[in-house]
Formats: sequence, structure tokens, C-alpha cells
Amino acid sequence: MTPYDVIFKKRMGEKLSLEELDFIVNGYNKGTIPDYQMAAFLMAAFLKGLSSKETSDLTHAIIKTGTILNLDEVEGIVVDKHSTGGVGDKTSLVLAPLLSSCGLKVAKISGRGLGHTGGTIDKLESVSGFEANLTNDEFIRAINEVGMSIIGQTEKLAPADKKIYALRDVTATVDSIPLIASSIMSKKIAAGTDIIALDIKVGKGAFMKELDKAKELAKEMISIGKSFDKKVFAVISDMNQPLGNTIGNALEVKEAVQTLEGKGPLDLQELCLTIGSYILKEADKVKDVLEGRKILLTKLKEKEGLKKFEEFFLKQGVSYCSNIFELPESETYCYVKSNLEGYISWLDSETIGKASVLLGAGRRSKEDDIDPAVGIELLKKRGDFVAKEEPVFKIHYNTSSLLVDLETIQDRLVSSYEIISQDEWARKNKEEIPLIYDIL
Amino acid sequence: MTPYDVIFKKRMGEKLSLEELDFIVNGYNKGTIPDYQMAAFLMAAFLKGLSSKETSDLTHAIIKTGTILNLDEVEGIVVDKHSTGGVGDKTSLVLAPLLSSCGLKVAKISGRGLGHTGGTIDKLESVSGFEANLTNDEFIRAINEVGMSIIGQTEKLAPADKKIYALRDVTATVDSIPLIASSIMSKKIAAGTDIIALDIKVGKGAFMKELDKAKELAKEMISIGKSFDKKVFAVISDMNQPLGNTIGNALEVKEAVQTLEGKGPLDLQELCLTIGSYILKEADKVKDVLEGRKILLTKLKEKEGLKKFEEFFLKQGVSYCSNIFELPESETYCYVKSNLEGYISWLDSETIGKASVLLGAGRRSKEDDIDPAVGIELLKKRGDFVAKEEPVFKIHYNTSSLLVDLETIQDRLVSSYEIISQDEWARKNKEEIPLIYDIL
Repeated sequence: MTPYDVIFKKRMGEKLSLEELDFIVNGYNKGTIPDYQMAAFLMAAFLKGLSSKETSDLTHAIIKTGTILNLDEVEGIVVDKHSTGGVGDKTSLVLAPLLSSCGLKVAKISGRGLGHTGGTIDKLESVSGFEANLTNDEFIRAINEVGMSIIGQTEKLAPADKKIYALRDVTATVDSIPLIASSIMSKKIAAGTDIIALDIKVGKGAFMKELDKAKELAKEMISIGKSFDKKVFAVISDMNQPLGNTIGNALEVKEAVQTLEGKGPLDLQELCLTIGSYILKEADKVKDVLEGRKILLTKLKEKEGLKKFEEFFLKQGVSYCSNIFELPESETYCYVKSNLEGYISWLDSETIGKASVLLGAGRRSKEDDIDPAVGIELLKKRGDFVAKEEPVFKIHYNTSSLLVDLETIQDRLVSSYEIISQDEWARKNKEEIPLIYDIL
Repeated sequence: MTPYDVIFKKRMGEKLSLEELDFIVNGYNKGTIPDYQMAAFLMAAFLKGLSSKETSDLTHAIIKTGTILNLDEVEGIVVDKHSTGGVGDKTSLVLAPLLSSCGLKVAKISGRGLGHTGGTIDKLESVSGFEANLTNDEFIRAINEVGMSIIGQTEKLAPADKKIYALRDVTATVDSIPLIASSIMSKKIAAGTDIIALDIKVGKGAFMKELDKAKELAKEMISIGKSFDKKVFAVISDMNQPLGNTIGNALEVKEAVQTLEGKGPLDLQELCLTIGSYILKEADKVKDVLEGRKILLTKLKEKEGLKKFEEFFLKQGVSYCSNIFELPESETYCYVKSNLEGYISWLDSETIGKASVLLGAGRRSKEDDIDPAVGIELLKKRGDFVAKEEPVFKIHYNTSSLLVDLETIQDRLVSSYEIISQDEWARKNKEEIPLIYDIL
């Protein structure tokens, strides 16, 4: 077998075996297959597609380049939740403590933000002292003692994925459903949990712009998970406007805390209740999702999740729990005000996410530093009434962290929403965009 | 513009502009665009295709990485003939002197053999003293004084083609009609001749296995030529059996000489007469191809071509013309005999070509040395009667040049033909394979 043979076969649209996929992935990871042959292979796979079997096999091959995390020492059912990336998406920060307060074990390995979407580790690190790098033993001990742990990516799990992703990024082969599915699932399966809950974002600010593509991705990921005997389900949720009311690391932690106190934005709470109740059902903790939802609402009311969240921070380097209420704040802020009266008909999460990056809240490239204090607060969301001169956005900024001048960011935000009349909104509202499109 | 943008656009099946193709070809040639991005681009171009306009523009971009040979100082109409590669194809050796004896100027830049097909320069170099490396001035002077010159590839013409071809060779992107057409035509157009005659080989031993693909390639190449205001035509000729009766460098020169003496194999002579008469017509030397054919037959009869051939060798380093009759001969030979009686129904030129490489007559990789003396003589061709124990092949070999043991080569040749009964042949002969399929 040669790399040429495998490229040729895929180029002809033929199906590849596990051995062939293993040969190309392992060879590329070891460096015996050069970038240019992998690039040709990826473009052929992109354009000719991969079957579900090939996608599972590719995932298998990627996992085999590293180790699978052994969570046998964790007592109970271990859960992971993954989002395909959104703007203002702090769901994990709410769900992980909430589920662990229900007796589940949450083991989450998270990434940092890149581009217009944020990353869970960046958000957690806005809490002073938070330690994202635990050893395997520390990770397992934290899960057993607290009920949850969230740590950063490790080089040991599916190392080929990182190398392949970097190549896809520069060869226009990123947005392929089989390649995305195998990339995400290789890391999730290598992380060794029993249940994998997927939150597939769809819409303007998401990786998947179209509902049918999002469903296709969800199905592919579920199919991979099943081939590894994992319990997997996917919620397809909206990313046509940001989730919750804040974008920016400390601002999002604060909003997660508010949500765990039962005072969070309704969309964020609803998404957490939906995903959480399905996880409880998959874990056989409840007979149906309604029962799961009731339990979760009780936990919110009793602030059980918040207690777990504090325990989690204490366990991972934060010296006293009240720190999570002493989050960094920006030195200054300003507003973006409406020059019209009417109803917000859309809020473009991609533009808002990119504006937050320009404030210094995110990264344009992996090496960029971020400012945890800065971000954008949405004072209005889709469907809200806005009076003339009423603020729509509150910009939390530090002059030293701005990547461009403030006016440019304000202009971006001005262009990120639309205001329409009451009559127009009444007509438009009939085609309301749901928060949750589907659960697979 | 970034390489990513161009790859992405082609991946989406969109048409690229001259500027975009120029950007990617020039960047790759300069080394500012890495191998892996070019590989992804080539695979996208392979699978999504290139329009005729894009193929011409790609050719243009490749030519622009080097210089165009200035043949203004050559008096008269300058002709080039190119074959897509065959086994036993010594057409150029016959045609070039024959056409220059008709007053045309033949300027030919040729390659060396690789794989199972031979190369004109290798054949010419079997004549002791032959010099394939002339300067531009020497090349032009030779053409003016003799009427013809054949030299080796120069680095100055379309240098990006060599680099792109090497990458295609290892990324399974060779057999794409637009990529083949632009590769060949970039070199032909950069060579600066007025008329380009193309001999597109089709069949088992050719690059193009199917007639419709060969026609498609011919059309694409003609279309590129026309976009550069060149006179271009294409003959589609058979490569299901070798052309003429010899494969091997000195053996082929000898056969070319015999053909110029009017004593060559009929298939070779017929192909030369066909291509030659069309060239004469394109050059307005004759009113139609029939007149052209008559002139060429006269030239053969009067050995005018042979005289030109001798002049050509004298001009390019050969010390006395009789050298071309003193070609190197192998130390020894043997036969492959038939163990059946009947008619040859096919002769597989690819297998025979590969057998000649194993004798040392060709190259498996570019660095290989070749033995000019060795080769294979076909004592029988398709449709010929063979008695039991009658020889089918004569193998001219030198033990020191064999790449494998002789038995292996003999076995290959035994497997390269089929003998059927007279009745079977009578039936089969109704679907006779023509020497020339089409002229476009």
C-alpha cells in the first residue's frame, strides 16, 4: 500500500478500508506521509465524500494515534457535552455543575476560543487562579470528589486530529461533514466518557449555516458514537443571535452564575434544561425528560449547581469561592444606541462575535492574548422593543486591549442588527426562529 | 487574494480568472505557495474540472513562469510535432527530416523516455557523438542551415510545468485532461513554432486508454493552441500494439533510417505520411493532403529525408554521417517462440514497453542509465500468421544491462500476445483496429 494508492482510490470515489485510512492517518501523524499527499487526500475526501463506515473508521484511525483516557476509576456514569461553537455560549458552565448536582459525573476536555466563537477554558480562566492543566490522576480525583472537572486539551488524545485540522485550515477542506464529525468525535471518544451530548449550533454565527447540514452532521456524529458503543444524542440549537445576553469571558462566567442562581436569561436556561434533561434520561436517572426538567429546575431553585460550581473552582486552583463573584471588570464602557424606534428583527451573532474579538475578548490567531474583562452585553434581543436613543449594546472595554479603534467596533455593532416597525415584526414573528430545532 | 481563496473557489466548482491561475502558478513556482496548497488546488481542479478558458489561462500562467523561444530569426514556416507517448514510436525521427526536405523548418524540443514509453532524445543519443544540448543561437542556426533541429528540454521554457508535474505525479492528479493539455501545450507554445502537429496515442500502451478521452484531450489542446493563434491539429492514432517493428533506442533509429529509405514498416510509414501531409497543408505548401502525400512519397523514394537526417546528425555533433548506419548493437540475442499455431489477435504494447525497460532500454526513474543497444524486435504483428515454434519476438540484450533475469522478461513477452485460430481471427478481423482513428 502506498499513499498514492489511497489518494487514487478516494479520488475515484471508491470506499476505503479501515487499514487504508489507518495507513494514511498514522503515516501523516508520524511524518512518513508528507503534507502534500495528505492535502490531496483531504481534498479528494472532501469532494468525493466518505461513507458513514469510512467516517467511523477515520475516527478510529485518528484515535489510534494517541491514547484513550481511562475513566474506569470514576464511579458512576460519566458525561461529556460538546458544542460545535457559538457566540455567547456558556451552556457548559451551567450544565456541568447542574448535572453533577444531580449525581452524574461530568468529565469535560475543552478548547480555547478561536475566531468569532469563544472557548470554555478561556471563560474559566477569567476566574483568578483557575488551573486548566490537571494530570490524569488529578482530573479523575476532581471528578470523583466534586462530581465534575473541566480541563484543557491534552496532546495525548487523538494527536493526528490537531495536525490534520491545521492542514485542512489552509487547504479549504474544513467544512466537510465527515471530516468535521470525525475530528470532533475522535477527541470526544478518546476522552472516554459514557454519554456524549452534542449541541450542534446552526445559523448565521455557527459553523453550520443550514439546518439540513446541521442535521446531517448530527447524524454522522451519532453514527460514529454508536460504532464505539457510546450513548450519544444531539440537540440542534439556534445561533442566529448570541445565546444569553453576554459575550466576553468574565461577563459569561457571571451570566452562568446568575443562571445557576435561577436568574439567567431564558434562552440560556431553556437550552440547559433541554440538554440536561436528555442527559438525565440517557443516564437512566429519570423515566422521561419531563421528570429530568423538574429535577433540574429544583436544583436551580436550591442553588445546588452553584454550590458545585464553587466546589469545582476551589478544586481547580481558585483560593476562595467568592472569587467567582469577584470577576475582572473592564475599566470603562460605552453604549451603542438605536437611532430608530421599533423591534429588533435580527441580531447577527457572527458580526457581534467578531466585534468582541476586536475588543480583545477573543483570538484571531492561536497565539493571541485575550483580555478576560472585556466584552459585549446585549441589552436587547430579537423581538425586543427599542425606543429611539435607547441602548442596544453595552460595550465593556479597556483601551489597551482594543485591536482597532472603538468607533470601528461601534460601527460593526450598528450594522449587526435591524430594527423594523411593529407591523413588520408582527408579520415576521409568524416565522419565528426556534431556540431548538431538533433533538436527534 | 490568498491561495486559500483560489483553492476554495475551485473546490466550489467556480471558474477561476487568469489572475487567479497566474497567482497560484507563479506563487508555486516561486515557492511562496507551499506544496500542500498546490496539491489541494490540483485535486480540486482534477475533480471539479477546468473550462476551456481556464485551461488556456492555466497554460498562459505556466508559460509566463519562463520565456518564449524567439524563432523570428528562422526563415520560413516553423513546425513542431508532438506525440503523447507510445511504444516503438519513432515518428519524429522520420517526419522531421522528411518535412525539412519539403522546405519546412522543424524545431523540436524533446523529452527523454520514462516508464514504458520511449523518448526521442534517448533514441538520437544512441548515435555516437549526438549533442542534444544546443544554445538558442545554435538551435536557430541549425534550423536555418539544415532545416531541422531536435534538442533536449530546457529549464527556461515553462519551468512551473516541471514542478507541477512532479507534484501531480505523487498526488494522483496526473490523468486529468485539462491538466495534461495545459502541461503539454505550455511547453509547445513556449517553443515558439507556427504549426503544432499533435499525435494523440490511444489504447492499451498509451496514456489515453479510451478513444473519447483521447478526442477530448485533442480538442482541449487544439483549443489552447488556437487561443495562442497557433495552427494546431491532432491525429488520433492507435497504441494497442507498438508502432513499427522495433522498441529500443538504436533499433528505432535504424528503423527510422529504413523508413526514410522507403523500406520501413507500413504502419510507421502510413502514420508519417498522414501527419506529414496535414502539416504540408497547414503550411500552405500543398492545396490538399493528397498532394502532400504524393510529395512525401516522392521524397521517400528519392531519399531526400535521409539526406536531411544525415545533415542533422552532422550538425549536432556526429563526426561522419555513416555513423547513423554504425549504431550500437547488443552482444547477444534470443527469441520468444510461439507454442501454438494461429493468428496474432493482440500484442500488448504496455507489457512489451515495460519488458524493454527491464532489458535496460528505458528508465523506471529519471536517474536511470539506459543501454542504447538493447531492445525488442517484433517479428510478428497483429493479424500475422505464426507457425508453431516460430519466433514472435527477437530480444536484443546485454547481460550487464538486464534489470531482472532474462527468463522474467521472456515470460512477460510470452504473456504479451494472444494467438487464435484462423476462424476466430476471421471473425475478429471484422472489428479491425484502425491505425488512425480520427484527425481533428
